[in-house]
Amino acid sequence: MLQSPEELRELVEGYLEGLALTPALGSLATSMRYALAGGGKRIRPVLCLATGDAVGAAVEALLPAAAAVELVHTFSLVHDDLPALDDDAERRGRASTWAEHGEATAILAGDALLGEAVRLALGYPTTAVAQELVAATLGMIAGQQLDLEGAPDLERVNRLKTGALFEASVMCGLHAAEVPTGEQAPWRQFAVELGALFQLVDDLLDGDGAVLRVGEEATRRLADDAADRARERLAAIPAETSVLEGVVSDLAARTA
Amino acid sequence: MLQSPEELRELVEGYLEGLALTPALGSLATSMRYALAGGGKRIRPVLCLATGDAVGAAVEALLPAAAAVELVHTFSLVHDDLPALDDDAERRGRASTWAEHGEATAILAGDALLGEAVRLALGYPTTAVAQELVAATLGMIAGQQLDLEGAPDLERVNRLKTGALFEASVMCGLHAAEVPTGEQAPWRQFAVELGALFQLVDDLLDGDGAVLRVGEEATRRLADDAADRARERLAAIPAETSVLEGVVSDLAARTA
Repeated sequence: MLQSPEELRELVEGYLEGLALTPALGSLATSMRYALAGGGKRIRPVLCLATGDAVGAAVEALLPAAAAVELVHTFSLVHDDLPALDDDAERRGRASTWAEHGEATAILAGDALLGEAVRLALGYPTTAVAQELVAATLGMIAGQQLDLEGAPDLERVNRLKTGALFEASVMCGLHAAEVPTGEQAPWRQFAVELGALFQLVDDLLDGDGAVLRVGEEATRRLADDAADRARERLAAIPAETSVLEGVVSDLAARTA
Repeated sequence: MLQSPEELRELVEGYLEGLALTPALGSLATSMRYALAGGGKRIRPVLCLATGDAVGAAVEALLPAAAAVELVHTFSLVHDDLPALDDDAERRGRASTWAEHGEATAILAGDALLGEAVRLALGYPTTAVAQELVAATLGMIAGQQLDLEGAPDLERVNRLKTGALFEASVMCGLHAAEVPTGEQAPWRQFAVELGALFQLVDDLLDGDGAVLRVGEEATRRLADDAADRARERLAAIPAETSVLEGVVSDLAARTA
């Protein structure tokens, strides 16, 4: 039976709370858990679970992959917030990890979050989950570097910074669910549209990015187009995609 | 036919020079290659290759694993040198990566080096190479955090900071060579002694660590004991270990 995004989000929260980190990490675990508990919406791991759920996999078997995606996301936030990068002392209404635990610890906590993410992804018999995750991680890092250099092609920057991990969220769900490679292509197309939708709505909420380039109305239209294409992609996939359709609508309508 | 450490080192250098990085990384590759070309002795990848060579594997098949180990080592140096951590503006006689390319780029270059290392390790059909590498990486990070906090148990700190990757160098060579798990235990014991030997000689060369605790003479004795035990471990392993015996002697006698 398909689970709702809210149910899936609770499963993610529970799994992250109970997640056993490498014992040797000792006190570093405190800052890693601080970063992980930042109250994000868990969109990516929910997407991973909903994808696997849609193709009939047991959600419990998908949780390590979903958590791995969230750990990579958290790693990137911890490092991006550093003074040398975006210099953000706040994130989601509280002190960012470096502001709370110091720069040195934040650098190491980010490194360790990435390491733990890969460790989780390596719990599957196939290397495909970890491969997908690492490719997305390298894409994200590349996007951050392009951003740092003020690269003019913002669409490419966003595709890397945001889109790569959205794709990986869907694809890791498929790999964890052991969906054959030959059936995965339409799913990736769906994920690409979803990543674009997320970014466009982000731009609308922040009043930057696409809004500065083409204006608010045009950005809204682009977002709605991306949502339509995401729904079309889903409709063509022979799976129980009703919850994922809801995810598309939620992303299109989100206000935070 | 067994290859000498010098021959193996040349193979590593050639492989690292020709290594294809993820294309999207673009200009970040420059700082990654800068860090990688730092003129290190390549002890860890040579150890990885010599181990696989000793059990009869084709050295070419071991090169990705060996390079992965060196990339993890380089990632750790790039991050450890950062102003917030060890604040080293120099490494091996030239500007450290952050001093040359800026802090932001050095953080991202380190992240990307770790990502590429895992990508290389995932090129093997088994997840074991990547698992070994990631466990060692998490150990190293834990050791650096303990060091940062001034943990009193220096042996534990060194076992994590230095020993973990020495172990992984040997074990990744075995996994890449497809040596059955049941035959690996004596190899790990050998690697532990080798890591201890390396650290003790490091302390002798730097006049710190064990030298400050027990004096120079006693440290020399401890190093010689570790070398003896490493040789004993090797002697008990049914493989062509003559080159590895040479590696032990080189590590015991090294002056830089």
